Amino acid sequence: MDFAPDARTEELRTALLDFLDTRIAPAGPVFDEQLAALDDPWAWSSVPVLDELRAEARDRGLWNLFLPGETGGERYGAGLTNLQYAPLAEVTGRMGRLAPAALNCAAPDTGNMEVLAMFGTPEQKDRWLRPLLDGRIRSAFAMTEPDVASSDATNVSTSIRREGDEYVVSGRKWWITGAMNPQCEVFVVMGKTDPSADRHRQHSMILVPRDAEGVEVVRPMEVFGYDDRDHGGHAELAFHDVRVPASALVGEEGAGFAIAQARLGPGRIHHCMRAIGVAEKALEMMCTRASERVAFGRTLSEQGVVRDWIAESRVRIEQLRLLVLKAAWLMDTVGNKGAHTEIQAIKIATPATVEWILDKAIQVHGAGGISQDFDLAAAWAGNRTLRFADGPDEVHKNALAKAELRRQAR
Amino acid sequence: MDFAPDARTEELRTALLDFLDTRIAPAGPVFDEQLAALDDPWAWSSVPVLDELRAEARDRGLWNLFLPGETGGERYGAGLTNLQYAPLAEVTGRMGRLAPAALNCAAPDTGNMEVLAMFGTPEQKDRWLRPLLDGRIRSAFAMTEPDVASSDATNVSTSIRREGDEYVVSGRKWWITGAMNPQCEVFVVMGKTDPSADRHRQHSMILVPRDAEGVEVVRPMEVFGYDDRDHGGHAELAFHDVRVPASALVGEEGAGFAIAQARLGPGRIHHCMRAIGVAEKALEMMCTRASERVAFGRTLSEQGVVRDWIAESRVRIEQLRLLVLKAAWLMDTVGNKGAHTEIQAIKIATPATVEWILDKAIQVHGAGGISQDFDLAAAWAGNRTLRFADGPDEVHKNALAKAELRRQAR
Amino acid sequence: MDFAPDARTEELRTALLDFLDTRIAPAGPVFDEQLAALDDPWAWSSVPVLDELRAEARDRGLWNLFLPGETGGERYGAGLTNLQYAPLAEVTGRMGRLAPAALNCAAPDTGNMEVLAMFGTPEQKDRWLRPLLDGRIRSAFAMTEPDVASSDATNVSTSIRREGDEYVVSGRKWWITGAMNPQCEVFVVMGKTDPSADRHRQHSMILVPRDAEGVEVVRPMEVFGYDDRDHGGHAELAFHDVRVPASALVGEEGAGFAIAQARLGPGRIHHCMRAIGVAEKALEMMCTRASERVAFGRTLSEQGVVRDWIAESRVRIEQLRLLVLKAAWLMDTVGNKGAHTEIQAIKIATPATVEWILDKAIQVHGAGGISQDFDLAAAWAGNRTLRFADGPDEVHKNALAKAELRRQAR
Amino acid sequence: MDFAPDARTEELRTALLDFLDTRIAPAGPVFDEQLAALDDPWAWSSVPVLDELRAEARDRGLWNLFLPGETGGERYGAGLTNLQYAPLAEVTGRMGRLAPAALNCAAPDTGNMEVLAMFGTPEQKDRWLRPLLDGRIRSAFAMTEPDVASSDATNVSTSIRREGDEYVVSGRKWWITGAMNPQCEVFVVMGKTDPSADRHRQHSMILVPRDAEGVEVVRPMEVFGYDDRDHGGHAELAFHDVRVPASALVGEEGAGFAIAQARLGPGRIHHCMRAIGVAEKALEMMCTRASERVAFGRTLSEQGVVRDWIAESRVRIEQLRLLVLKAAWLMDTVGNKGAHTEIQAIKIATPATVEWILDKAIQVHGAGGISQDFDLAAAWAGNRTLRFADGPDEVHKNALAKAELRRQAR
Repeated sequence: MDFAPDARTEELRTALLDFLDTRIAPAGPVFDEQLAALDDPWAWSSVPVLDELRAEARDRGLWNLFLPGETGGERYGAGLTNLQYAPLAEVTGRMGRLAPAALNCAAPDTGNMEVLAMFGTPEQKDRWLRPLLDGRIRSAFAMTEPDVASSDATNVSTSIRREGDEYVVSGRKWWITGAMNPQCEVFVVMGKTDPSADRHRQHSMILVPRDAEGVEVVRPMEVFGYDDRDHGGHAELAFHDVRVPASALVGEEGAGFAIAQARLGPGRIHHCMRAIGVAEKALEMMCTRASERVAFGRTLSEQGVVRDWIAESRVRIEQLRLLVLKAAWLMDTVGNKGAHTEIQAIKIATPATVEWILDKAIQVHGAGGISQDFDLAAAWAGNRTLRFADGPDEVHKNALAKAELRRQAR
Repeated sequence: MDFAPDARTEELRTALLDFLDTRIAPAGPVFDEQLAALDDPWAWSSVPVLDELRAEARDRGLWNLFLPGETGGERYGAGLTNLQYAPLAEVTGRMGRLAPAALNCAAPDTGNMEVLAMFGTPEQKDRWLRPLLDGRIRSAFAMTEPDVASSDATNVSTSIRREGDEYVVSGRKWWITGAMNPQCEVFVVMGKTDPSADRHRQHSMILVPRDAEGVEVVRPMEVFGYDDRDHGGHAELAFHDVRVPASALVGEEGAGFAIAQARLGPGRIHHCMRAIGVAEKALEMMCTRASERVAFGRTLSEQGVVRDWIAESRVRIEQLRLLVLKAAWLMDTVGNKGAHTEIQAIKIATPATVEWILDKAIQVHGAGGISQDFDLAAAWAGNRTLRFADGPDEVHKNALAKAELRRQAR
Repeated sequence: MDFAPDARTEELRTALLDFLDTRIAPAGPVFDEQLAALDDPWAWSSVPVLDELRAEARDRGLWNLFLPGETGGERYGAGLTNLQYAPLAEVTGRMGRLAPAALNCAAPDTGNMEVLAMFGTPEQKDRWLRPLLDGRIRSAFAMTEPDVASSDATNVSTSIRREGDEYVVSGRKWWITGAMNPQCEVFVVMGKTDPSADRHRQHSMILVPRDAEGVEVVRPMEVFGYDDRDHGGHAELAFHDVRVPASALVGEEGAGFAIAQARLGPGRIHHCMRAIGVAEKALEMMCTRASERVAFGRTLSEQGVVRDWIAESRVRIEQLRLLVLKAAWLMDTVGNKGAHTEIQAIKIATPATVEWILDKAIQVHGAGGISQDFDLAAAWAGNRTLRFADGPDEVHKNALAKAELRRQAR
Repeated sequence: MDFAPDARTEELRTALLDFLDTRIAPAGPVFDEQLAALDDPWAWSSVPVLDELRAEARDRGLWNLFLPGETGGERYGAGLTNLQYAPLAEVTGRMGRLAPAALNCAAPDTGNMEVLAMFGTPEQKDRWLRPLLDGRIRSAFAMTEPDVASSDATNVSTSIRREGDEYVVSGRKWWITGAMNPQCEVFVVMGKTDPSADRHRQHSMILVPRDAEGVEVVRPMEVFGYDDRDHGGHAELAFHDVRVPASALVGEEGAGFAIAQARLGPGRIHHCMRAIGVAEKALEMMCTRASERVAFGRTLSEQGVVRDWIAESRVRIEQLRLLVLKAAWLMDTVGNKGAHTEIQAIKIATPATVEWILDKAIQVHGAGGISQDFDLAAAWAGNRTLRFADGPDEVHKNALAKAELRRQAR
């Protein structure tokens, strides 16, 4: 057992921090201004300052860090293990909104690239993976549906039916992150190809171009009052008998559930580590503000209750980070399956812990904390979504408890 | 001791519920549409459907219910006690955004009308109170400032200095609710007239017309992502040497702190009862959704954890309502001072309790719960502000504990 | 609605406080000494100082206050309503262990006297109720069984079968409070007379003298490390074909469940009010200790976290007391059934709230708080039992939620 | 970074589990019986079955595992690092009361042996360390005092004054664990040798034989009703001008605080790991009971709320264990000082987490859970003491927050 990160991780982390401090952080206000000046308010990924950051990230070797080295015999990314990438993901979460996109490490593109790298045909890789790896286009992952509980992937009811050389996609999706962006050119859509098959063989994944006939972007969804246009929003989509060639299928018919599962593990590590980055940033802001703000003749940092929050925040972050890192290590050493309990555990622990810390950071900032003047309220809202994304906490707790009961009964 | 409401309260409550169900609730979508069609997005109080509701509320005798019968020898409102009005305030909170305005019982106008009724000169009553009572204009209360901890009214630093027959107002305010609305014609501004006086005699209240020279509406503040334009937003204001006649002073010089305190008590009862109305509505929505939504073969209402939330919500609401009603009763029987501990206690208990219930209602609604499709996320954000409004929870707890320690030491 | 107690309640409360301060409190150490000197360590009710207190309580008119005025046409007690008695019960809880016994208001005798007053035959009243009212004997209530979930009274499996002029009682009970005391002369035993009847008509109540043949006192149960010998302990009992005359049945065959329910309501009010008394006492001790104890150069009462505890304790107690008083008022005005939700709510809210306050009071007392030097640890352990007594919290929450769901669906 | 334990740890853990399962667990009831039969109820360490276990532990190479290999140039123990010993300490906590003593790894002897190994003179090692290492005698650590806040070691007020060739010890101590045991032959006493020295140089440690003249064992302290006689109880002690030779001083005059600090680190790791063992055992019992107990037609393990508890327990244990292991690793790699924050963090996190889990395990066991029939209530009481032992949580949180504020300000 050894808790020290390896040299490569340390080196990349240093490089990343430098890039973030000197280039990405100052770009924030420029990005906001340029975004506000766009004709299409959703076209966030064409903002000039972001292109500059991306170019520089490539030059610095900080591009596509999330992708493991060898997938399907080819090398796409930096070749880091999950355990090596995890601390880098934390840093990108900590430094705010632009970092993931600047490094081409932003969800949902990361997951989609993984899917295409692992399961894509050469043609699919050529058409979609390559431009995604280059950061020329964006993508979305269309799974969640308004009318069924998203906690169970097997509920997904959008139909994908074969007709000759084509598949016909019909159904309704919502909360499709990134899909409001006109430069989001392709949707990875999950739907049912065979309702009569075994429960975990009914679904397939298919690639649907955003400009295919019958694709309707119904409306943007709001998260609390935010439309999240700075990373493509969250769309409600309707697929009205959308026809795509049979070659658009990812993997084979019936593989949808398995692909969704494979996509899940690394994505969750990333999400959780970014959330820990958010919590670290919030704790830093809490300390700074508490040290500066005076009330009733003392700084807030001298108030016992505020100190209690600071201590609890530190203690909770330390525990949480170790849990996520262990989950990453398990994924590297025993794979998705062996890491199952830990992958569930981090889904349960992370959003709640980070929410608690953000709440306290907001409280220390007073009314400013809920306003547009700090990033805390927006971070809180974003983190709140993680308590349902990929299924509500309660579903994961139930499943983890069942596994624990089985384990104890042995 | 008797826990039954009196006949008048019951009668008005029934009338109110009928009006809300049959007229106000259906007006919601019309209001949203008409608001969206306005030239000035902040001019919420000139939306036609709201005028119709107001006219009907007056006809039905449901107008200005919040105002006690006799203030300064004149009768302005319905003449209800705090204990009688409290259950009505709960109903207006429960039925959403339009009810308070439709009944001319919306903050901050209610508090401002009370101040004018109690402390206004005949001229001030004529010019501002009368149109407010008639619902012809709106008002704002400008106390909170960006650069000082708002938890202590004596921190307020805006200056009001006498020059001949005028007062000159200079300073910066923020979170001035309602002030984005162009029909909000007057601000009740708190500022310092005598920095050398005793701590509680330094401040005064003064009436500043929105169109006075030197008044700048700097920007709208956001609450989480919401701009709250449906009730006038929250403005940052700058007063650049604004001159008003000496007759604009409310009460005498140095009375500002005392007036702020007098304004506080009933306002807090109203806030808390409306928040309880929100919690009741959220519990109702939680039950309805839980009964309808199926996951893993059972309705959510059959899940033990959801039942736990429902039971806890009910138990917490019942306790909280009794506490607020007792505070109202104390205000009626022993006055603001005698009710001091209880007024503090409801400030501490209400936002936290309601936040917990809203969080669970949101969770039961899944991703829909944080979106624009239900009122839950907006209600959550609004309620979150109550944890600092009039000072953060922590300040009130500290003060209540000191009082308890003194009491126990006797 | 009126939150002021009536004159009779106030008058009795004052008399009670005087008696407690001047007579009962000083008797505590004497009682402990005399108890330690007994031959039979369980014979707590024959301690001389307790007899003196009882005699004086009778003289002062503070005897059997718990019993309503008219039961079955006869007058037994003080004739107080539940709402009048509740604040008195709080006082007896607050002043420690001896008060309930000194006033002949101690559980489980109170509930047993109510049952006998309401359902007893003249002969049963003569033999058992009269000496109980006089405080000459003690009694126990034998319902809970080791092998079934006590959360559901219909689970009770002890058999009571008719044989000629006798009933034969067979079964095992545990946690029978008071039953270790040799002066506890009678057990009110719940058992099954007709397993084939409707679910709520299978059980009966029967009176079993402690000295009947076949009654075995198996062992004392411990609550954490306490044996509670100062109020009769908690026994495990075995009934080995114990024969009692048919006239020992309370009410008719099959009425056991209904009698248990009738016994429950007032008992729960008493329990909860005594627990609130405990919480008030704990808060008082917390304030006193915090004001005296110095750490790191300041009294604990100047530490923000301790103040937070004090404030929260006060706010929670105030809410809880109002809820219990309202439940008492409902029992007086609409009866056990109409008060059902509130009776459940106080069962859910009281133990958790009081536990939280006791925990904080203990923490303020440091290591002393968990020791025999203060009553806090023993009070904590006693209160902890309330989270299962009459069924665990979770069962009550589940039932309350079901009722709420039904109510909302209407 | 690597989360796998090394081979030696794995091997010892397997050997330990085998010994515990096959020998120690079955010895429990025998021990209780033999303890009950003793003339002196406190002489727990002379119970025959314990001697047999100790002999066997030595034979199996499971003796003194806690002691690092080289201390002061000599080899006393197994030579394990903190990180290697930590998982073994967890196992000893999990398997109940006898394991630590059977393996000669029980507090406070472990800490005292460390102190003697590090700071003892050859004579002291001969007289006290050797018999302790052999398990022939027991010892106690006398620091805490009744009249001062134990949260700050510099408060300790017992005086140790030099008179010729002797030291005279005067003062009062309480909560001296193990000191009720007549076989506890020596006390390591902390006291003040120079009140005028610098704050951290005023204290010294001295060895006082239990049979020295002037040593009074005042009384046993109780922990929630428990006297903990199965591991020597907790004594209040008075030192009435007790004279010991000057050679009884441990280290030099003024080194008391430094020795106390050195003693603290490993002890805290042990405590926390044993507590995690308790939590694991409690979770196991919770699962087993929940799977067997039926209420309302379903096992408790099918109830959503119980599943929530099981899942939360697992998630919390996993995080906590990693934090403690990391603290152990830091102690091994960067020493006590470098591990300061983590050593504080585990003190804050462990008792609260384990308390929560024990509470839920108790609740699942119903009334049995608080009784002598399961170890849960006793474990709860023991764990509750950890929220003040070595200073209350609040003091540690305050210190950790100050360090965090300093760190963030850099």
